[in-house]
Amino acid sequence: MSKQTIYYTLTDEAPALATASLLPIFGAFAKEADIELKLTDISLASRIISSFSDLLPADKQAEDGLKFLGDLTASPEANIVKLPNISASLPQLYAAIKELKTQGYDLPDYPENAQTDAEKDVLARYSKVLGSAVNPVLRQGNSDRRAPAAVKGFARKNPHSMGKWSKTSTSHADYMRDGDFYSSEQSVTMDSAQTVKIEFVGKDGSVEVKKTLPLLAGEILDSMNISCAKLRAFFEASLQEAKKDNIMWSVHLKATMMKVSHPIVFGHAVTVFYKDVFEKYSELFKEIGVNPNNGLGSVYDKIQTLPEAKQEEIKQAIQACYDTRPELAMVDSDKGITNLHVPSDVIVDASMPAMIRNSGKMWGRDGKAHDAKAVIPDSTYARIYQETINFCKTNGAFDPVTMGTVPNVGLMAQKAEEYGSHDKTFEIAAAGTMRIVDANGNVLMQHAVEKGDIWRACQTKDAPIRDWVKLGVTRARQSDTPAVFWLDENRPHDNQLRNKVETYLKDHDTNGLDIRIMSYNEAIRFSMERIIRGEDTISVTGNILRDYLTDLFPILELGTSAKMLSIVPMLEGGGMYETGAGGSAPKHVQQLMEENHLRWDSLGEFLAVAVSFEELGIKHNNEKAIILAKCLDKATGKLLDTNKSPSRKSGEIDNRGSHFYLALYWAQELATQTENAELATKFSPLAKALAAKETTIVAELAAVQGKPAGLSGYYHINLEEVTKIMRPSDTFNQALASL
Amino acid sequence: MSKQTIYYTLTDEAPALATASLLPIFGAFAKEADIELKLTDISLASRIISSFSDLLPADKQAEDGLKFLGDLTASPEANIVKLPNISASLPQLYAAIKELKTQGYDLPDYPENAQTDAEKDVLARYSKVLGSAVNPVLRQGNSDRRAPAAVKGFARKNPHSMGKWSKTSTSHADYMRDGDFYSSEQSVTMDSAQTVKIEFVGKDGSVEVKKTLPLLAGEILDSMNISCAKLRAFFEASLQEAKKDNIMWSVHLKATMMKVSHPIVFGHAVTVFYKDVFEKYSELFKEIGVNPNNGLGSVYDKIQTLPEAKQEEIKQAIQACYDTRPELAMVDSDKGITNLHVPSDVIVDASMPAMIRNSGKMWGRDGKAHDAKAVIPDSTYARIYQETINFCKTNGAFDPVTMGTVPNVGLMAQKAEEYGSHDKTFEIAAAGTMRIVDANGNVLMQHAVEKGDIWRACQTKDAPIRDWVKLGVTRARQSDTPAVFWLDENRPHDNQLRNKVETYLKDHDTNGLDIRIMSYNEAIRFSMERIIRGEDTISVTGNILRDYLTDLFPILELGTSAKMLSIVPMLEGGGMYETGAGGSAPKHVQQLMEENHLRWDSLGEFLAVAVSFEELGIKHNNEKAIILAKCLDKATGKLLDTNKSPSRKSGEIDNRGSHFYLALYWAQELATQTENAELATKFSPLAKALAAKETTIVAELAAVQGKPAGLSGYYHINLEEVTKIMRPSDTFNQALASL
Repeated sequence: MSKQTIYYTLTDEAPALATASLLPIFGAFAKEADIELKLTDISLASRIISSFSDLLPADKQAEDGLKFLGDLTASPEANIVKLPNISASLPQLYAAIKELKTQGYDLPDYPENAQTDAEKDVLARYSKVLGSAVNPVLRQGNSDRRAPAAVKGFARKNPHSMGKWSKTSTSHADYMRDGDFYSSEQSVTMDSAQTVKIEFVGKDGSVEVKKTLPLLAGEILDSMNISCAKLRAFFEASLQEAKKDNIMWSVHLKATMMKVSHPIVFGHAVTVFYKDVFEKYSELFKEIGVNPNNGLGSVYDKIQTLPEAKQEEIKQAIQACYDTRPELAMVDSDKGITNLHVPSDVIVDASMPAMIRNSGKMWGRDGKAHDAKAVIPDSTYARIYQETINFCKTNGAFDPVTMGTVPNVGLMAQKAEEYGSHDKTFEIAAAGTMRIVDANGNVLMQHAVEKGDIWRACQTKDAPIRDWVKLGVTRARQSDTPAVFWLDENRPHDNQLRNKVETYLKDHDTNGLDIRIMSYNEAIRFSMERIIRGEDTISVTGNILRDYLTDLFPILELGTSAKMLSIVPMLEGGGMYETGAGGSAPKHVQQLMEENHLRWDSLGEFLAVAVSFEELGIKHNNEKAIILAKCLDKATGKLLDTNKSPSRKSGEIDNRGSHFYLALYWAQELATQTENAELATKFSPLAKALAAKETTIVAELAAVQGKPAGLSGYYHINLEEVTKIMRPSDTFNQALASL
Repeated sequence: MSKQTIYYTLTDEAPALATASLLPIFGAFAKEADIELKLTDISLASRIISSFSDLLPADKQAEDGLKFLGDLTASPEANIVKLPNISASLPQLYAAIKELKTQGYDLPDYPENAQTDAEKDVLARYSKVLGSAVNPVLRQGNSDRRAPAAVKGFARKNPHSMGKWSKTSTSHADYMRDGDFYSSEQSVTMDSAQTVKIEFVGKDGSVEVKKTLPLLAGEILDSMNISCAKLRAFFEASLQEAKKDNIMWSVHLKATMMKVSHPIVFGHAVTVFYKDVFEKYSELFKEIGVNPNNGLGSVYDKIQTLPEAKQEEIKQAIQACYDTRPELAMVDSDKGITNLHVPSDVIVDASMPAMIRNSGKMWGRDGKAHDAKAVIPDSTYARIYQETINFCKTNGAFDPVTMGTVPNVGLMAQKAEEYGSHDKTFEIAAAGTMRIVDANGNVLMQHAVEKGDIWRACQTKDAPIRDWVKLGVTRARQSDTPAVFWLDENRPHDNQLRNKVETYLKDHDTNGLDIRIMSYNEAIRFSMERIIRGEDTISVTGNILRDYLTDLFPILELGTSAKMLSIVPMLEGGGMYETGAGGSAPKHVQQLMEENHLRWDSLGEFLAVAVSFEELGIKHNNEKAIILAKCLDKATGKLLDTNKSPSRKSGEIDNRGSHFYLALYWAQELATQTENAELATKFSPLAKALAAKETTIVAELAAVQGKPAGLSGYYHINLEEVTKIMRPSDTFNQALASL
């Protein structure tokens, strides 16, 4: 393996198309610093093909790019630029298989109901590519996210819209006060490596081993339980309170990521809100397969098999619920999609910042914004939103022009905390005790449980914690910014973590650094008091807060979390540079296909590659790489300032045009910098050529727009074909080639 | 001076009457521990008499009790039990003079308009007894206040009413964001003792010395300014916002204590709210002497000299204001007294806790409770109320049954901070600069000021700060409770203070103590998070927060601040034990005069005397005194538990009856304690006698009620006469005498 290689990922949809234009630019510039950018295909299509390569002819086989990169994460030399990819739902998988078949890939169908061993084998292969299959393989480290200086500067000069807050806003977050995970959490740190058992003990004394867990020494193990009865009572009380107070009601969960526990919680919200319907049609709904965990939408889906009259009766029963319940917040008031239709529609880490940005309001049935009760049942993290709401009521809306920033260093590696709990989460079938027993038979933790309760265990390994503490200190030092470890003294898990943090902090030189430990409420309040004064504060948090805060603050600061720099410093010393959230933008592809205009903004790639260059330069003492990085950042800043980001409209500047300006500004920065004469000399002609031919190149790029692009593959693109589409300016291509 | 003396104050009105019954009991018990209780007269009447004793015949002269006690504060042996006294207003002074004259005291009249030297001498003598004349002389130390265990325990068992809070409450505190004292504060610590000058520099460069201030080394000197223009703009914006948001409006100040600055601020609130009236009648109001600083009441007062028609016209103009303004909170809706009628009617430290206790509501014109915008213009301390309101919205009302307590250690000695600023407060007459110049001519601090601004300087001496830090540590140690120094890092004054606190903390053994420094918001939040968990937190604060918090928390915890134990550990080593706030209760006297029922509750005296005994016992190694104290506390607890406090109704148990039960329970506790056999033996017969004769004594005490008491003096009581009235049970008196 070359020591000067950056692995750039080929993913899906819009970012993949953009890569065909952008990577040649990065490659041309990088080679002047003896850096090679290698493209690794981890697209959904390639992951399908490689999963079945042993069954395909030689010319149809593909390397397993994801496995290659996964292996690479174990090397200190890993330097991976990771673009957004498809986390495939079943419909997307079907479509991809279908497309590949038309391209001559003799793939087996997805076995909906696998019976034979062969079918089960096929199912297992497909299961590996379904859902969030890439990040768990590549994210072999903790998380370091921040708003890059250029982005923050741009947002200050071009503030996004921010709704004003009234001091008399009645909006608030509502959460359980007991019976939730927060109230029931227990936590231990393992003295030694051993295998523990998760057991259910029935009322009759029978013991059922639910799972065995091998644990490492120093690993933190938690268990907690949500009471089904208290959860339902909470929903009912909250609904009645909202009705009485005449405020709109909404529920906010993370049913996508917390894929086992949160759909159940969501289901309870649905069956409590529509209690009359679910009680009346209890038997019928069972028969036709209604699953409230999939939302009210499931009712509308499943009743389609019923006679019209019956359907109408049920729909009227649903309507009748609205008379006795508070107004329900809408996800899409035009289409009548309520907050309770689909569990994945209201994802707390996106929906709460949106509400806070919108004056604390959500959308009502009338299509207008109203104050709302935001129900976030488990109180563990709900409190931070109430704190933020209270802060906005007191101090008014945040001002993107003046506000400071809150970067995050997050504990993420090795499925830390709740995000690794899915296989240790159980919906309790009967009353009894859930307990964890160590290798010697000692009960480490136990909870009395009732039918319907949701019990779970979470693990947090020691090595990631050590690394996270180090990362927090490093970030504080490098940014010269106060860093706050968010640890709630009322959480047993956090107290275990705090012991480690206090110990591991001693391993580092913290002299002159402002490092604090605060509970979540204190920490967010402290951070908010600072941002309204224009001051920055690093949040050093666990895994869920990492996720929530890197939406909350970016959305308030920048209007989006897609422009964050997201770095995964690997536990083994390498680094992965993620190019922003926001998905792979299927609508962008559609526009390209119809109008040959790609509105994908490669800003995330510009920022990530700059850091990738910089880290590589530091690691290999490659001065040119560091200068390339600096100049790329300056070029990105100039691109933002001169408004050369892609427009949404065909006929105006698109992704390709913005790449041209990046190349122009980057070359100009390199030509005029004085740190490295060789680079200046090298890039001077390119800078001049691109500047001289700006009009021609822009015209050539514009000329192709307005008609279909002629894209033959969607999931499995032909890179040669896409390159032709994405590099239509001969003048620009020749200038680059002359380097 | 005896080393075992407690100085018990004879004050005014109800507490003075109660003393005639209670002091003989204390005296009888105390002598068994070789303690003498000496009565010192500091009543308003005695202060008047002693001021003119050089002009009165020998038999009408009086010792200056206040001067005697004031001198005593300089002695480490001082042990003073201080009861509530009259802070005389002019009408009260007139009435007292009149009464004394009828008793044959040949006193000069109060010279309303003193011209001659003789008149000025008389005015100066009367001025010394006017207003808050006692506390500044006696409070030669900092402040140590807490809810005694017996009181707290009683409140938990017998919780006062507490309004529920809605999560959708729109009530809030509103305050200036700039242009106020908080935003403009500057602060220095003096290196050396010297005299500085407060100067006004006019736009023409002319310098006027407003005051010279001798300062000690280590003294903290602050200056700050409130912008008149910004204050008025804030009021206007706040009124318009309240109108738009349809919320009731109210203003909360401390015009009594902050007697120079706050009436001016109140005046601006009045003239902004009734802008149309004050603009239209500007000239007329000047002629007839309307002073808006005295409230809208001043308008109603002064227009009485005008013709009926004109009065009516003005009243209608006032009414018309209510159409364009938000609803105004009422002090007394029955009588039509609004929040803006009288500056002393809405005293922030009492009104805000009342609002918080009443579900965040104030009273509207309709006699019903409504959400309100509580305007507290200067933001320095306003934030704590908004924090408390947000906390109640989030967590619901506090529960007196379970909540912890927040004792206070307050910096009070030597007119610390704002409470000593009256003679250094100036309403600015013309634009220019206010500055403080040191002995060498260096400008220490300066503010650009405009006409109408309110500029002030505050002093805080070093010795009280040292003592306050020591007291905080001592209280934390003695109560085994976390202590928080409330210091706002955004306040220059507090940062000067913080330097000293951090230094002086090193002088003490803080090993094992939880002592923290937090900003006000952090500190109150921390304290509230703890009290809802039943945990106690000592607040160690500056002078204003001392005053505010010892109302806020007691009112929430106990329903009143009158039951707090208030100790002033003197800087010189002595101690003063104050017997609760709440005034001297003129209405109680009226009831006694008419029905011979005194409903005064001597609880404060019971508690204060117990501490007085305890401190004296510790100081003189007097074991019996300590046991007397312990048993008195237990007796007080039993008295509360058995509901032997005075009833409000004639015919039921009154102040005298409760004293009997105190004596009974106290004697019983002493008889049954096993620490000191001598005391047990001594009190055993009394305990038996009182128990045996309970029915007789209660009957004798009840027998006198229902008819006028025959009290001949009001301000200047005849102690012999009062003693007869207050000790009507021969059986009880004889039992006591047998000790």
